[in-house]
Amino acid sequence: RVTRMACLSCLLEYGTVKIIVIRNKAVGSVFRLIQFLIILYVIGYVCVVRKSYQVKDSVISTVTTKVKGTGFTNISGLGAHVWDVADYNIPPEGESSFFVLTNMIITPNQMQSSCPELPDQSTICMSDSDCTEGSSDVRGNGIQTGLCVNYSETVKTCEVLSWCPLEIDTDLPENPLLAAAENFTVLIKNTVTYPKFNFHKRNILPDVNSSYLKQCEFNRITDPHCPIFRLKDMVAEAEEDFQTMATRGGVLGILIDWSCDLDFPEHYCGPKYSFCRMDNKNPENNVAPGYNFRFAKYYKTTDDVETRTLIKSYGIRFDVIVFGTAGKFNIVPTIVNVGAALTILGLVSPVKSAVLGLGV
Amino acid sequence: RVTRMACLSCLLEYGTVKIIVIRNKAVGSVFRLIQFLIILYVIGYVCVVRKSYQVKDSVISTVTTKVKGTGFTNISGLGAHVWDVADYNIPPEGESSFFVLTNMIITPNQMQSSCPELPDQSTICMSDSDCTEGSSDVRGNGIQTGLCVNYSETVKTCEVLSWCPLEIDTDLPENPLLAAAENFTVLIKNTVTYPKFNFHKRNILPDVNSSYLKQCEFNRITDPHCPIFRLKDMVAEAEEDFQTMATRGGVLGILIDWSCDLDFPEHYCGPKYSFCRMDNKNPENNVAPGYNFRFAKYYKTTDDVETRTLIKSYGIRFDVIVFGTAGKFNIVPTIVNVGAALTILGLVSPVKSAVLGLGV
Amino acid sequence: RVTRMACLSCLLEYGTVKIIVIRNKAVGSVFRLIQFLIILYVIGYVCVVRKSYQVKDSVISTVTTKVKGTGFTNISGLGAHVWDVADYNIPPEGESSFFVLTNMIITPNQMQSSCPELPDQSTICMSDSDCTEGSSDVRGNGIQTGLCVNYSETVKTCEVLSWCPLEIDTDLPENPLLAAAENFTVLIKNTVTYPKFNFHKRNILPDVNSSYLKQCEFNRITDPHCPIFRLKDMVAEAEEDFQTMATRGGVLGILIDWSCDLDFPEHYCGPKYSFCRMDNKNPENNVAPGYNFRFAKYYKTTDDVETRTLIKSYGIRFDVIVFGTAGKFNIVPTIVNVGAALTILGLVSPVKSAVLGLGV
Repeated sequence: RVTRMACLSCLLEYGTVKIIVIRNKAVGSVFRLIQFLIILYVIGYVCVVRKSYQVKDSVISTVTTKVKGTGFTNISGLGAHVWDVADYNIPPEGESSFFVLTNMIITPNQMQSSCPELPDQSTICMSDSDCTEGSSDVRGNGIQTGLCVNYSETVKTCEVLSWCPLEIDTDLPENPLLAAAENFTVLIKNTVTYPKFNFHKRNILPDVNSSYLKQCEFNRITDPHCPIFRLKDMVAEAEEDFQTMATRGGVLGILIDWSCDLDFPEHYCGPKYSFCRMDNKNPENNVAPGYNFRFAKYYKTTDDVETRTLIKSYGIRFDVIVFGTAGKFNIVPTIVNVGAALTILGLVSPVKSAVLGLGV
Repeated sequence: RVTRMACLSCLLEYGTVKIIVIRNKAVGSVFRLIQFLIILYVIGYVCVVRKSYQVKDSVISTVTTKVKGTGFTNISGLGAHVWDVADYNIPPEGESSFFVLTNMIITPNQMQSSCPELPDQSTICMSDSDCTEGSSDVRGNGIQTGLCVNYSETVKTCEVLSWCPLEIDTDLPENPLLAAAENFTVLIKNTVTYPKFNFHKRNILPDVNSSYLKQCEFNRITDPHCPIFRLKDMVAEAEEDFQTMATRGGVLGILIDWSCDLDFPEHYCGPKYSFCRMDNKNPENNVAPGYNFRFAKYYKTTDDVETRTLIKSYGIRFDVIVFGTAGKFNIVPTIVNVGAALTILGLVSPVKSAVLGLGV
Repeated sequence: RVTRMACLSCLLEYGTVKIIVIRNKAVGSVFRLIQFLIILYVIGYVCVVRKSYQVKDSVISTVTTKVKGTGFTNISGLGAHVWDVADYNIPPEGESSFFVLTNMIITPNQMQSSCPELPDQSTICMSDSDCTEGSSDVRGNGIQTGLCVNYSETVKTCEVLSWCPLEIDTDLPENPLLAAAENFTVLIKNTVTYPKFNFHKRNILPDVNSSYLKQCEFNRITDPHCPIFRLKDMVAEAEEDFQTMATRGGVLGILIDWSCDLDFPEHYCGPKYSFCRMDNKNPENNVAPGYNFRFAKYYKTTDDVETRTLIKSYGIRFDVIVFGTAGKFNIVPTIVNVGAALTILGLVSPVKSAVLGLGV
């Protein structure tokens, strides 16, 4: 029983350090100033600026887009042609990006046959012996037949098996053919989730109704909550010129920032839109500019021969990038950060001791 | 030599604080209780619940999907038509999402020509002077020719150059045309990597063999490891009705959670599937519902005139979202978190001193 | 005035603990050793290895790709055919992945009609009563008409409404038809942003000029900065054989690592490429291997009947995965980590006291 008593007594006793109180105004002032700065830092920077007392979550997002607008072109070989969304939006549906065709090189009525290669250092030939049957250059347009044929009256090139006639992609129109694309609009529907906080919201805010949505257009000042964007406005916000960008193509980022402080009421948490050109930031490093790709529409003639219209399409790809972190008060990061700050506070005492030691 | 000795001796001496041991049962009890609570918090919350002693890594994932099933429609203008995956899965291949067409408005045999605009506040006209040649409304269907023509016997509208006849998208079938889509299945192949831990795994677990894969179907209770999902089941798990969702389209998230504690053996780390509707969470904020897009199939007539079949396709886009964090013991977060906790423990002494000071 | 004086005096006084200096060489040595180890850990591991004094940011990235090369096939039913990028890159444009067709099963001239199902346990029939009109198996090819018809001279199967003739996908060519794809090249354009540090860079480095870009090809030793990759080389770097992978298809990850220490000059921050096969890591778990999908090209006959060419396409999907974290010195993580380390340092004293207590 005695041992048990002793043990219990041992548990309930405690040690405390003996503290000597010394009055010295100079050292005391410095000490309080350092303490004040540390507390200021903890409150001002750690708490207010960085919100280190919060637990964070990353956004999960879904985006759908819908482009509207029609354009008109009159290209030789294609004739008058009205372009609607099914024509210029390729592929018709993307996860969180959409492409608007603005300029193109069209090569209609291609067929599997043989024709002279485009003239080039490696394709110009004098006789059949300069060409190798079956060889295929990765930068060429087909499989060489081994013949050297007239490309024009003055130039002979190796003949290739390919989709003929070959595309001549050097004469890109200087002004975008579908210049009207600048007035197309896009409706962006974006729903976000913060799973840790069971928070769901969409960018069509509760105060937006159907009739407003039918006629509104995003404007940073007058209509900041309208999810319909005019293409030209977006490009202008990214400090680019639409017609210039449309000629050679490019990638435009539509950034939707859902950063939220969920210690505040939910309606303070909304999308913040910004726009920036994604494909080339440095004008002095302008190698391989623009954005283009090739696609084809396939047809069959009445003789069951496949033909295609090849379109080298230049245009703007709009990437919708949704990001954001939400924070909410939580005890763990609070303790970790306050703990670290208090450690620093505690370090002031040794500093003080050292100062005193020097002073005495 | 003496200086060196002194220096060495100085290095090897040490200071320790003088601790006064006081016995006071009341203060001692409170002190031990606070210590107990802090230790409980460190062990229970920091270690067990939040696993703060682990270093974390985010998942890198690859998804491929394959839909199976055939549906049958009998639409006026199109006739009896069997739909297979090449028809209803548009575009044929997506990175981590796939689309299943369930409802549509088909406008066959469109040609580049001119026809009266659909009647609307801004398109109804009395005479040619109400229409502006060359103008194009972003919400309209083409480029105005400047003529005012009969849309019906009673209504005149401005004529537009466009793909004619225009699509009339107001009479969407009330029941999804491809209602059979609810019985389609999809095989999801998902491989994940945690690069920091050199961990690789796929959702087709090692115990799944070919013959099982040929006939199984995901069921949360009986077949939780089968990676083949019936579309209807997934929609039902998201607490939605397939036929309702299929009529106007939507986006369904297939969430695959690979959160793992890699301090446990590898076979405990597996995919956890969940499903939720992504496109609209608030039924009271139901502006611009659903999901649809337009695409066209292009043909050429024997006279070399391009025609197209425009399809406004409503359907369900399935987004496969793979997420997860793996954790494994590491010394750094352990020290940071334990350090912070011990700081708090150390803070109890001053509290105690203050209590004593008041008590004495 | 006296109270105010007292208060001020109280603020400026300070307490310091009474420290007793004891000389004991053994305990002192252990104490210094522990301190040395902790300081080594703080400097070596926390600072040098983990750079815990830095604030981190994740990369935001845009990728565009462009494949070049032509291949030749001679398949019965299709004839001699040259494939260029518009033919083998499906869909023509992806956000950060591209697909190269390497093998295929082509079923030309399919039409909506009825034909016998492929023979299978569930489709083989003896008489019409074995078939159910209107039924549709999810693993079948169409809607049963209720008739039992001759599939071959010996086998009868249920007739289905479908795109006929049905695809027979059992005889996949053993060697990839488009074996030439191994010599295709792809230009990858990648721009990254670290928004926190306002850092922008692209993978076409400033020292790369147009003429170099026209003829270079990535090689880890000779051309590590060329953004043009030969497909075969990428597959080889992932330790796979191109022809084997091309036969049944697969997914190859092109990993671009932009991890950077932005305390160093900007030109040290560049892309590091690596390649790995994404779709199947465990050869012993080789259920459902490869990667394929079906797509169709639609035509209309002169009688306005829709026909299609169905292509079951096997190929390699290249997923460009850009990742990385940039770090830059910041005071907050420095304080948190140093604070935690100092706490541990402070813990050595009690340890020492305990040692002393035992020793005395």
